Amino acid sequence: MKVVCAIEYDGTDFHGSQFHPTVRTVQGEFNIALEKILKSPLSTDLAGRTDTGVHANYQICSFELTNKSMNENNFKEAFNSLLPDDIHVVKVWFEDDSFNPRSGATKRIYHYFIYNTKERNVFLRNKMWWFPYHLDVDKMREGARYFEGTHDFTSFASMDKDDDRTPVRTIYSVRVLTHSKYILLRFEGRSFLRRMVRNMVGTLVKVGTGDWQPEKIRELLEIKDRSKAGATAPAYGLYLYKVCFEQKQIRSVYEEENR
Amino acid sequence: MKVVCAIEYDGTDFHGSQFHPTVRTVQGEFNIALEKILKSPLSTDLAGRTDTGVHANYQICSFELTNKSMNENNFKEAFNSLLPDDIHVVKVWFEDDSFNPRSGATKRIYHYFIYNTKERNVFLRNKMWWFPYHLDVDKMREGARYFEGTHDFTSFASMDKDDDRTPVRTIYSVRVLTHSKYILLRFEGRSFLRRMVRNMVGTLVKVGTGDWQPEKIRELLEIKDRSKAGATAPAYGLYLYKVCFEQKQIRSVYEEENR
Repeated sequence: MKVVCAIEYDGTDFHGSQFHPTVRTVQGEFNIALEKILKSPLSTDLAGRTDTGVHANYQICSFELTNKSMNENNFKEAFNSLLPDDIHVVKVWFEDDSFNPRSGATKRIYHYFIYNTKERNVFLRNKMWWFPYHLDVDKMREGARYFEGTHDFTSFASMDKDDDRTPVRTIYSVRVLTHSKYILLRFEGRSFLRRMVRNMVGTLVKVGTGDWQPEKIRELLEIKDRSKAGATAPAYGLYLYKVCFEQKQIRSVYEEENR
Repeated sequence: MKVVCAIEYDGTDFHGSQFHPTVRTVQGEFNIALEKILKSPLSTDLAGRTDTGVHANYQICSFELTNKSMNENNFKEAFNSLLPDDIHVVKVWFEDDSFNPRSGATKRIYHYFIYNTKERNVFLRNKMWWFPYHLDVDKMREGARYFEGTHDFTSFASMDKDDDRTPVRTIYSVRVLTHSKYILLRFEGRSFLRRMVRNMVGTLVKVGTGDWQPEKIRELLEIKDRSKAGATAPAYGLYLYKVCFEQKQIRSVYEEENR
């Protein structure tokens, strides 16, 4: 049986999500709490890798369990009493052994926040990208449409040379929403390449300032050269908002009880 | 001539506002930036003291200047390029020599935020008091009215024994506002005693949970005993929202130009 945890974290004080033996990571802290709960170490799997400073509203972390000693709510409470205050378990449910948070994810949603006003706000540092110059949101929307669909995203991926995964990805939608001084860029896709969202944001901002025309994005996709596209947007504006799975989950006992 | 700066800061990483030789404080960081700008050290005055973890949207910090070498906007830009990212100068203006940010303040407004929901939110830690139990806001409003007016606030002040200042203070208004899961308590008064706002919040929360009746607050004011009132609410929910002065300021050149 797999135990699946949806977790929220503030990425500011983490060196990314992935476990690392010498630095503080999300998975590292999760593993420490898990070992305390089950009194033995266990390996865990994340649905997606997030870089240093990147946040998550709903990252998935799962692990295998041979005997079902606790229910979902007990797990949730145990985790939340043991985890540090920058990680929080939002939901726990059970799946069968075949569950894999990485390959089983049918959709990942990322949010990127831009705080677009002249005056800096100290309370939003590490939470949004403060961008004090005018952005033409309509142009950004126009540019964003070129990302939608299936493309070779080489120009927007910070890939290692020895990475032999395909640079072809499918983006379901890119939305550019505004509310007062805030701009939210919402990306939906099955999976994303390394730094791909931040690289797309960096390029969309070049379109927003008027440096580039929206059609430039089609051109950049065709060129397949990372050095030609915009700079990588800062990590702290990015949130892994949600990871979705196919709806053939075993309905959890806890959920049934709480209907 | 006095140079007056309205500053915003996130109190999380400061050991309070007041200068201290060995720890990081708001005034300490401000003084470092000021010394870089003017190439010599200068003493500064704050309108109000805030404790470790307490934030400010509009604290006042002023200093004396003998020759007017820069205009208001130059000062603002110089400060904001030198200050760390958890302090920001919102506004700079000039006053005559008689200006005193402490005694000249006619009104101070404090905001206290409670995040009142079962589920913790990692992004609001250090910014609001997470209180997961039901609060009766109407009862809190009823209780808050007993604070308004002129009273002896001994029961709500964390005063040193050798402090010989009067414990009598005048509160102009206390408002309890709600929006979704958020509760904002807004306090307006000429001046406040040490930890007075947080002590009033702690007691209002006891009224909100139903432990105490609203009329208990009148009783607590009469008793004049700090140990009988509610606990001090956490520092990180508190914001020095604004410090107001009488409207006989010299109209700044910068403001005139930007009309």
